Amino acid sequence: MNGAESLLQTLGHNGIEVCFANPGTSEMHFVAALDRQPHVRGVLGLFEGVVTGAADGYSRMLDKPAATLLHLGPGAANGLSSLHNALRARVSMVNIIGDHAGYHRSLDAPLTSDIEGALRPFSNWVRTSPSANSIAKDAADAIGYSLSGQISSLILPADTAWNCADEYTQPPNAIAPTPASADPAVVEAAAVRLRASGPRTAILLGGRALRSPQLEVAVKIAEATGATLLAETFAARTERGAGRPMVTKIPYPVEPSVELLQNFDSLIFVDAKPPVAFFAYPDKPSVLTAPGTTVFTLSPIGADSLQALDDLHNHLAEAAGNSRGRSSLHAELAPAPAPSGTITAAKLAAWLSGAIPENAIVLDESITTGRGFYAQTAGSQPHDYLGGTGGSIGWALPVGAGAAISSPDRKVVVLESDGSGMYNPQSLWTYAREQLDIVVLIFANRKYQILRNEMSNVGVPDFGPKAESLLDIGNPAIDWVSLSHGMGVPATRVETIEDLDRDFRAGLTDSGPRLIEVLV
Amino acid sequence: MNGAESLLQTLGHNGIEVCFANPGTSEMHFVAALDRQPHVRGVLGLFEGVVTGAADGYSRMLDKPAATLLHLGPGAANGLSSLHNALRARVSMVNIIGDHAGYHRSLDAPLTSDIEGALRPFSNWVRTSPSANSIAKDAADAIGYSLSGQISSLILPADTAWNCADEYTQPPNAIAPTPASADPAVVEAAAVRLRASGPRTAILLGGRALRSPQLEVAVKIAEATGATLLAETFAARTERGAGRPMVTKIPYPVEPSVELLQNFDSLIFVDAKPPVAFFAYPDKPSVLTAPGTTVFTLSPIGADSLQALDDLHNHLAEAAGNSRGRSSLHAELAPAPAPSGTITAAKLAAWLSGAIPENAIVLDESITTGRGFYAQTAGSQPHDYLGGTGGSIGWALPVGAGAAISSPDRKVVVLESDGSGMYNPQSLWTYAREQLDIVVLIFANRKYQILRNEMSNVGVPDFGPKAESLLDIGNPAIDWVSLSHGMGVPATRVETIEDLDRDFRAGLTDSGPRLIEVLV
Repeated sequence: MNGAESLLQTLGHNGIEVCFANPGTSEMHFVAALDRQPHVRGVLGLFEGVVTGAADGYSRMLDKPAATLLHLGPGAANGLSSLHNALRARVSMVNIIGDHAGYHRSLDAPLTSDIEGALRPFSNWVRTSPSANSIAKDAADAIGYSLSGQISSLILPADTAWNCADEYTQPPNAIAPTPASADPAVVEAAAVRLRASGPRTAILLGGRALRSPQLEVAVKIAEATGATLLAETFAARTERGAGRPMVTKIPYPVEPSVELLQNFDSLIFVDAKPPVAFFAYPDKPSVLTAPGTTVFTLSPIGADSLQALDDLHNHLAEAAGNSRGRSSLHAELAPAPAPSGTITAAKLAAWLSGAIPENAIVLDESITTGRGFYAQTAGSQPHDYLGGTGGSIGWALPVGAGAAISSPDRKVVVLESDGSGMYNPQSLWTYAREQLDIVVLIFANRKYQILRNEMSNVGVPDFGPKAESLLDIGNPAIDWVSLSHGMGVPATRVETIEDLDRDFRAGLTDSGPRLIEVLV
Repeated sequence: MNGAESLLQTLGHNGIEVCFANPGTSEMHFVAALDRQPHVRGVLGLFEGVVTGAADGYSRMLDKPAATLLHLGPGAANGLSSLHNALRARVSMVNIIGDHAGYHRSLDAPLTSDIEGALRPFSNWVRTSPSANSIAKDAADAIGYSLSGQISSLILPADTAWNCADEYTQPPNAIAPTPASADPAVVEAAAVRLRASGPRTAILLGGRALRSPQLEVAVKIAEATGATLLAETFAARTERGAGRPMVTKIPYPVEPSVELLQNFDSLIFVDAKPPVAFFAYPDKPSVLTAPGTTVFTLSPIGADSLQALDDLHNHLAEAAGNSRGRSSLHAELAPAPAPSGTITAAKLAAWLSGAIPENAIVLDESITTGRGFYAQTAGSQPHDYLGGTGGSIGWALPVGAGAAISSPDRKVVVLESDGSGMYNPQSLWTYAREQLDIVVLIFANRKYQILRNEMSNVGVPDFGPKAESLLDIGNPAIDWVSLSHGMGVPATRVETIEDLDRDFRAGLTDSGPRLIEVLV
């Protein structure tokens, strides 16, 4: 057995079922070994940003890692910006990056680069495996480390893959780190504060705390104390919609988020970080919380947030008579009235609220067009909402691929903007290849509209034709229908809500992918 | 005047004429400042691999830097694999990467990452400018450093761009490093060796030594001494074709390159590195030169190779009667017979040899389809031949954009394969946007054919359906005509040499870009 085979056995043994891949020569032994490992499936992406983005989407849905397979430094580099988002989504991922054989590296052949150096800013764990006999253990370490919502990057020199692993007997077990527990003193202090001034307290939920089990406990605490439930602006996955707890997302722009957070003397963090502005702007604050706000880190990043919320809830329940008798904080089914006619951002939001099918996975990178989508879909059919996390543009198409592969029985709706969609358009080919049940809406405003908005935010009052030209992506207009056909995904273009609604419902009914270019 | 304006003035003052850009919020002050700087033109790319690749192509043609504008860590990351190739092409480039304002960075907002760390493996020079008053000097340093064929990456925090540069008076001058001169002792030793055993000596030319002035001196030396002229396998730009000196490129596969290099006791390096195998393969050598080969580094990487060759030639000329009376080593115009009918790789090579127009810029990433192209086009009309340098796939489309922008009076021919073309397909949009005179041939074999070849090279005798599937990009087949139309570039598909020839000639006659999908 060679090193690559022992690596594949270790991946399969420890529950890795999918390897998103864009392989090259150095990875051929790994690729060949896939046929001797029945538990691991290979999914091809034509660009590495698709590969790592898909692994992100897969892990967001299943809370377990997929593997990726990448080709030396440049192949890894093409996957880094999707890794940046994955880091910020706090997902589990195991990247396998091929490298030259160890003895070849010092010769500085053309593809040689500092792969560890390239990966380190975008991974939590990086290791180069030194030999065929070490690779299985290194893989188990990589998987174990990743299980706490981390990115592991394991570099596989070609000779480590092809040499005989003569000391290998069986795949080692990956050991997940024990998640931190809530500090009882913090639980107690947060409970005291909630009892004393619940209505001036917000519970800020992020990461895995935006899943139903955590939200159901949080909503009990809120109902009992009058506290407000807030969500991080950039959350990887939120279980929401009709029948589920409602949470207010901190807005993206500085002014309304400062205004919102002024309502609270205290913030209780549950798998969330202190809220800060996405960008710095001249003459605007970077820290969004009001000065003097007291902070309780109930459940640190990556800790067991359900246990922490349970602890807090139990603590509160011990003192009777806490309920403020608030009305339910669960959303009711409330689709907006169906609009019609020419398409506007407001009509799109209203239409979407009624169009999301039950149990859908919705990925929202609609940016300026979709500013109203989140609020308007609070009362849609229950769905999972996947958002941007690290601010690297172009995430929704590749993350959608992984979400669909993770959950083949669910419909995936990707809300993408035309500017963003052009960063990883190759995702569509994987949609067609794997016949994924994804309906993509491309909102085509034919400009980098967010930058026009940001231009004034950063204090540029007006700009000339050269600046204007760099924000204009309408010359030439991107023909998304042709682009999509080119990669095997059926597509149409719509200019009215009625046509959008018809094509969208057809997309949901049919199996396989479909793209709709929505002119806005 | 703010920092961004002082930066633009410094770029313009020091001869930077083009800034390839994919900007974001942090770069808005730079973008706005473009309208106050008449000497610097902005060229938009929809993906950062296009941006840095185009800057590579621009510098390969003009031997001077373009600037790029990239958005924080993820934006830079998307440009890294093109930077890897640019590093290996030893071109000049000045990257400007926006970052958060300094005071914002420690807050760990979503887009925060270790930008310096990400850039360092793919740049020769990295600096974060600390203030608006320092940015002009930092930019001059970045430009100066780049002028010796290096990649400079200057990080521009948003507040450095927007703050007032009150100490700035005028743009500082960029100072190019003085190139190293040839060591007279090495010149002498190489001359002695050439006189003693010229026919057993090869002069290995790389980098800028493959331009006409250097080649004309090298060919005189070869004609006088019987030495052989060799070229690096991966050379950025070679001036070749009818009437120009002929050089033998070291082949990509191991066996024929070892066989070739066995003919020589001595190698004289001129802006070239010791030849090594592109990949390591089990049971094949990594070092390609014969054991005991004597090496003379006549002109180290980045040194003045023309001066070094002149020194050597003068040294040889001082001793009379050296000429071995060899026939000319200049290529004669040798158009191949025009093939016809269905398309094969051999016919394509023959057709191409007669189709390249005079003074064209030819970019060759045809990989398996084009294995015969280089040899067959030795007697084509004189042209510049741009090759792969760092092995990062997908370079030809973006590098072609920069080559065309550098040389608006020349025709650019991009020879691309279907697998490679999908790494930076967004390049086509910039072709349409700028109406670049580029004819792209996409050779569509619908597989990663090179990996099938490499599979057996690395000792995998057979592979199963899962491995087979990861090398098959024909399911679905990419429709390059649709893809190209989607980005505004007229396109056709051909299946015979006659149709190819007709559409190619039409593409050369028309202005603006055209794509031809060649089914092979």
